[in-house]
Amino acid sequence: MRKKFDDIVAAVEPLDHSLAAVGQAHLDDLTKPKGSLGKLEDLALQLFLIQGGKAPQADPMRIYTVAGDHGVNDEGVSVFPQEVTRQMILNFLNGGAGINVLAKTANAQLYVVDAGSCGGGYDEHPYLIQEKVAQGTANLAKGPAMTEEQCLKALLLGVSLADRAHAEGVKVLGTGDMGISNTTPSTALYCAYLGLEPEIITGPGTGLDAEGVANKAAVIRRGLEANREAVASGDPLAILAGLGGLEIATLAGLIIGGARNKQLVCVDGFISTAAYAAAWKLCPTVKEYCIISHVSAEPGHRDAVAAMGMEPYLDLGFRLGEGTGGACVMYLVRSAADIYNDMATFSAAGVSEAVE
Amino acid sequence: MRKKFDDIVAAVEPLDHSLAAVGQAHLDDLTKPKGSLGKLEDLALQLFLIQGGKAPQADPMRIYTVAGDHGVNDEGVSVFPQEVTRQMILNFLNGGAGINVLAKTANAQLYVVDAGSCGGGYDEHPYLIQEKVAQGTANLAKGPAMTEEQCLKALLLGVSLADRAHAEGVKVLGTGDMGISNTTPSTALYCAYLGLEPEIITGPGTGLDAEGVANKAAVIRRGLEANREAVASGDPLAILAGLGGLEIATLAGLIIGGARNKQLVCVDGFISTAAYAAAWKLCPTVKEYCIISHVSAEPGHRDAVAAMGMEPYLDLGFRLGEGTGGACVMYLVRSAADIYNDMATFSAAGVSEAVE
Repeated sequence: MRKKFDDIVAAVEPLDHSLAAVGQAHLDDLTKPKGSLGKLEDLALQLFLIQGGKAPQADPMRIYTVAGDHGVNDEGVSVFPQEVTRQMILNFLNGGAGINVLAKTANAQLYVVDAGSCGGGYDEHPYLIQEKVAQGTANLAKGPAMTEEQCLKALLLGVSLADRAHAEGVKVLGTGDMGISNTTPSTALYCAYLGLEPEIITGPGTGLDAEGVANKAAVIRRGLEANREAVASGDPLAILAGLGGLEIATLAGLIIGGARNKQLVCVDGFISTAAYAAAWKLCPTVKEYCIISHVSAEPGHRDAVAAMGMEPYLDLGFRLGEGTGGACVMYLVRSAADIYNDMATFSAAGVSEAVE
Repeated sequence: MRKKFDDIVAAVEPLDHSLAAVGQAHLDDLTKPKGSLGKLEDLALQLFLIQGGKAPQADPMRIYTVAGDHGVNDEGVSVFPQEVTRQMILNFLNGGAGINVLAKTANAQLYVVDAGSCGGGYDEHPYLIQEKVAQGTANLAKGPAMTEEQCLKALLLGVSLADRAHAEGVKVLGTGDMGISNTTPSTALYCAYLGLEPEIITGPGTGLDAEGVANKAAVIRRGLEANREAVASGDPLAILAGLGGLEIATLAGLIIGGARNKQLVCVDGFISTAAYAAAWKLCPTVKEYCIISHVSAEPGHRDAVAAMGMEPYLDLGFRLGEGTGGACVMYLVRSAADIYNDMATFSAAGVSEAVE
C-alpha cells in the first residue's frame, strides 16, 4: 500500500511554466487594461497551465464531502454531539444541507463519502460512496488517531475519488468535510506541520466559549505530547496518522490524486486546508494544482494559510465546512475560464490600446 | 425636474427592521451552526428585509453599464484615448467585453446605456438604451462639469432605468460604468463628499505611471478649486454637477430609483461607488438597499468605502469597472437567497442542535 501511494506521489508532475507566456499574452490581448481582472486572470492562467496550455475548461466540477468521526470527541471539544456526523450525512443525502444548496447554485456535482463515521452503513444512494475505513479514529489526546495502515487506506480512497471524477471528465474538484470535533485534529496538524502553537491558533469551531477553547487547546497540546515521536520525526505520514482524521486523510489523498490527474482542486476551509497541509508535506508539487477557496472565520486559518505561502480567494466569514467555501469559489473559476475563452481581443474588436 | 427628483428621494422608505427577528430566526433554524455562513447570511437577511419579509428572491438580475465622456480628459489623465469609450460601447454590443462574459456567467441581464459619450448616436440594438444627455461633460478642472439641469436629467435617466427593470420583474440591480478618464471625477467626488485629499487617494486608473498620478492629483486639486463654491456649499447636487460625470449621475439615479423600488443594488467598484456616494448624500436611506460588491485595486477605493461605513464583499484586485465586480457578487446574492429558501431546518432534518 505504501509503495502504491509513493508511486502516485511520484507521478504528480510540476506545471510546464514555459507555457505561461502564451497564456499571459492572450490575457493581455483581451479588451481590458492589462491585469485589470486581477485574481480572475491568475485563476485563468493557473487553469491554462494545469490543462497543458489548452483553452481552459472549468466544467464539469465536482465536490466530494467526506465524513469521519473522531475519538478526541470524548474530550469535550465540540458543542455538537457526535451523532450529528451521521445525521448530517443523512441531511446531505436528502439535499437539505448548506453544501447541497451551494453546490446546486454553483452547478457542481456533489458526492458524499463515508470514510469513517461511527455506526453502521447507510441505505444505498446514487451520490453516496460508502468506504468506511473505521468507525471513527482513536483519541489523539492519548496516542495515534489512526494506524499507518488506516491512514494509507484513507489516502488511497481519496486518490480513487479523484480518479473516478477524472474518468467522468471532471476538470475541477472541491474538497468538503463533515465530522464533529474535526477542528481539533486540524488544529493539531497545523501545529505539527507548520510549527504553530495550539494556545495561539485554537478557535471556537462550531461555537465553544472561552473556557471550551482553552480546554480544546490543552487537549491539542496533550495530543502533540502523546504523538511526540511522530511530530519530532517530521514524517508527514506519521504526523497525519497520529493527529489527523479519516476524512482529513481522504481529502489529502483527493488533493494528491487531483494533482496527479491535472485537475484544479478548490480547497475549502479550516479542515480541508489541514488536509492540504498534509498533502503539501507529502507532495510539495500539489501547490501548483490547488487554490485556497476562502479564509475561514476560525481564527487560526489565516495564520495556517499564510504559513504555507498561500492566499485565499474569498473572505466571507464562513465557518461551516462541508465544502461550502469551495462551492462559492467555483463560480469564480468558471468566470475565469469564460473570460479567457469568450472575451474579444483588441484587434478583433477594433479597440485602441493604451499609450505606454 | 428638481421637484420630480425630490419626490423620488422622499419616496425611498427605510427598511422595516421589526421584520429582522423573523428572518434571523429562520436563518438560525437552518441545519448549520448559527451564523456559520457569515456574509451570505447577512445578504439573505438584507434581501429579506428589502423585499418586505417574504422569502427572498434574487432573480431576475440586471446590470446597467452606463457610458459617458469627460472634458477633463483634455488634461492628460488617462493612458487610453477618449475614442475608446465609443469603441467599448460597440464592443459591449458585440458581446466581447469583460462585463458581457461575466454577466452571462452570472446569468444576469445586461443593458448598455449611452448617457453621454462623445460623437453621434449608435445603430439600434436590443440591449442599447440611447439617452445621451450631452456629448461628454465640460472640463471639471476649469469649472462645473455639468449644469444642474444636465445633472438632474442624468439622475432621472437613472431612476427610469431602475423603473424599467422593476416593471420587468428585476429584483437585483448591478451598476456598471464606461468612460475614459472617469476615475478623475470619481476621485474628485470622494474628496468633496468625504473630505479625502486628492494627493492621498488619487491612483493610476487604467495604468498611469507615478508622474501621471501626480498630474492627475494636481488636476483634481484644481477641479476642487474651480468648483469651490459648490464644494463649500455641501449641496450634494451642486457637487455632483460640478465634479461628476453623466454616467456617474445616471448611476446615482439608478441607485436611488432601485431603493425606491425596493431592489437590492450591487454597487460595482471605484466609479460606481462615487455614484453611490452621491446617491447616499442625496438620500441617506439608499444605504439599506445597497452593497459594495468589491474593493477595487484603485488605491483610494478602500478609504472611500470605509469613510462611508461600508464593507466590500469581494477583494479580487479588479480595476476594470463596467460592472464586473457587481456581476461577480450577484452569484453570492443568488447563493444567499437559495440558502434561505432551500436549506432544511433542524427539526425537519432530524439533526441535533448545539448544547449551549
